[in-house]
Amino acid sequence: DNIEVYKEEVSDPLPSWNESNSKSAIIAFVEDVTNSNSANFIPIPDRIATFDNDGNLWSEQPAYFQLFFAIDRVKALAPEHPEWKDQQPYKAILEDDMKALMESGMKGIVEIIMATHAGVTVEEFDSIVKDWVKNAKHPTKNVGYNELVYQPMLELLQYLRANDFKTYIVSGGGVDFMRAIVTEVYGIPNEQILGSRVKTEYDYNNGNPIIKRLPGLDYNDDKEGKPLNIQKIIGKKPVFASGNSDGDLQMMQWTDSNSYKSFQLYLHHTDAEREWAYDRESHIGQLNKGLDEALEKGWTIIDMKNDWKVIYPFELK
Amino acid sequence: DNIEVYKEEVSDPLPSWNESNSKSAIIAFVEDVTNSNSANFIPIPDRIATFDNDGNLWSEQPAYFQLFFAIDRVKALAPEHPEWKDQQPYKAILEDDMKALMESGMKGIVEIIMATHAGVTVEEFDSIVKDWVKNAKHPTKNVGYNELVYQPMLELLQYLRANDFKTYIVSGGGVDFMRAIVTEVYGIPNEQILGSRVKTEYDYNNGNPIIKRLPGLDYNDDKEGKPLNIQKIIGKKPVFASGNSDGDLQMMQWTDSNSYKSFQLYLHHTDAEREWAYDRESHIGQLNKGLDEALEKGWTIIDMKNDWKVIYPFELK
Ligand SMILES: [Ca+2]
Ligand SMILES: [Ca+2]
Repeated sequence: DNIEVYKEEVSDPLPSWNESNSKSAIIAFVEDVTNSNSANFIPIPDRIATFDNDGNLWSEQPAYFQLFFAIDRVKALAPEHPEWKDQQPYKAILEDDMKALMESGMKGIVEIIMATHAGVTVEEFDSIVKDWVKNAKHPTKNVGYNELVYQPMLELLQYLRANDFKTYIVSGGGVDFMRAIVTEVYGIPNEQILGSRVKTEYDYNNGNPIIKRLPGLDYNDDKEGKPLNIQKIIGKKPVFASGNSDGDLQMMQWTDSNSYKSFQLYLHHTDAEREWAYDRESHIGQLNKGLDEALEKGWTIIDMKNDWKVIYPFELK
Repeated sequence: DNIEVYKEEVSDPLPSWNESNSKSAIIAFVEDVTNSNSANFIPIPDRIATFDNDGNLWSEQPAYFQLFFAIDRVKALAPEHPEWKDQQPYKAILEDDMKALMESGMKGIVEIIMATHAGVTVEEFDSIVKDWVKNAKHPTKNVGYNELVYQPMLELLQYLRANDFKTYIVSGGGVDFMRAIVTEVYGIPNEQILGSRVKTEYDYNNGNPIIKRLPGLDYNDDKEGKPLNIQKIIGKKPVFASGNSDGDLQMMQWTDSNSYKSFQLYLHHTDAEREWAYDRESHIGQLNKGLDEALEKGWTIIDMKNDWKVIYPFELK
């Protein structure tokens, strides 16, 4: 008996999860569909698991981390753009006036994203993001952005991979921004990261070919864009989908329609102390329709405050 | 000594290749970049190999196999479209008048492709193609289209995978057409197949979500489209590129610009007896600029007639 208890303890695949309904539902699903004697067995090539990123694998408050990158980038590029001092939304950023920046609305945000994410080659952009994340600090948590990943989700990714699931990110965030940062953090290679992207152009460049990033949206990987991009790029319907907002709802529905047994996992931000608490009324990561549908269909909902022992990896140190 | 000879014989990774320059160049490259003591060593996650499909992994004469699918599909759908009897390019197909069909030009071909590749869900299209390939026969070879794959290339794909390369298809052909056929033949899963594609639409469909195929081109995976799609989807520069036409030239150049040692492989169709012989003047699979650049840069060129012992797997039986 002692030996069995010991065995169970050391082999807990999700040690940062409390013994909650969400934890037991995940484990029951994985054990069922990987059991070759089960009627619900899923062959390895079809074990596709898709994860939203912002607010699902790392935090997204008080604003998307990619927006902080864009803001820092505007500041870094300002010497080359003296006209920005008098021009919104750049003026707001250079004066650290977040209120004026937010008043510039989506139009202002898109302008900043394009100004800071285009005009360079794909290699240059990769280096810029990698350099940024090395030194940048989150404005209130005061740690690196790549430290604000969720320890319980890292364990879940690892647990699924140990059971021969192929783990993908399917995010509204920029695909090349993520690629520059997350492979190391999540153990997910570039080719398993799907996201929004800018237009690009191939230039032979006298025998030194480059791919240039252009200021225009090529794909918006959100809402319907998620199942559509999954079909375009992966070409298989997932059996496991994980997200935290209404932008993930279509991916959940699409996964739920799999003829294999499937799993839908919503992360509910309920922890105002250790992380942030927000859902139906939030401007970022709104979870309203998705929450209703999850409750109605019995999808699994993580209650962050009660289900997770720790939020971030640095809490373990 | 005898033991060593025997060992070499049984471990020949490319048994259907004659002892040619192309064979030895491939093996020398793979042995070099997978040797951890070599200055040219490539870590496993960066061993990305991209293969064109039509005329490179299977035949493409006297017309792309996908066009034969479209023609057969027009015939199958004709009872539902009585108007096609009097309407080009459908009339030409229904009367088996290939000359009139070709006279309809690219406009006619595109119309047929859209009429036969859209208007169904992604699952329905997959079933239609799978059903077709089970019974359809090539017009002159009189075998199934999936039997007209190149045995030496199957061995090359397997050899690369055995050396931890990730093998991708990057083709101008339709991605979902290929996915329905080639996973089984080439051992390449859906998510490693890139190609051209039609626009799609997500429909919640009262709780039974579907993705519908629409009559419009979403992406043309040819020429510059190849490196651009590789960057969008894989997010890594390949170290090995294989193709047979000018449509692959940009993929070759892009791969050739890798800071790792890389390999460019052109298949030259030189065998009028066992397959087809064509290059600079061909309407299908034209190899003109690519051939010049390959010769100039010392890329490896397969001389199909002299380098390959067999062309198709059924010759081995
Ligand atoms: Ca999210
Ligand atoms: Ca080709």
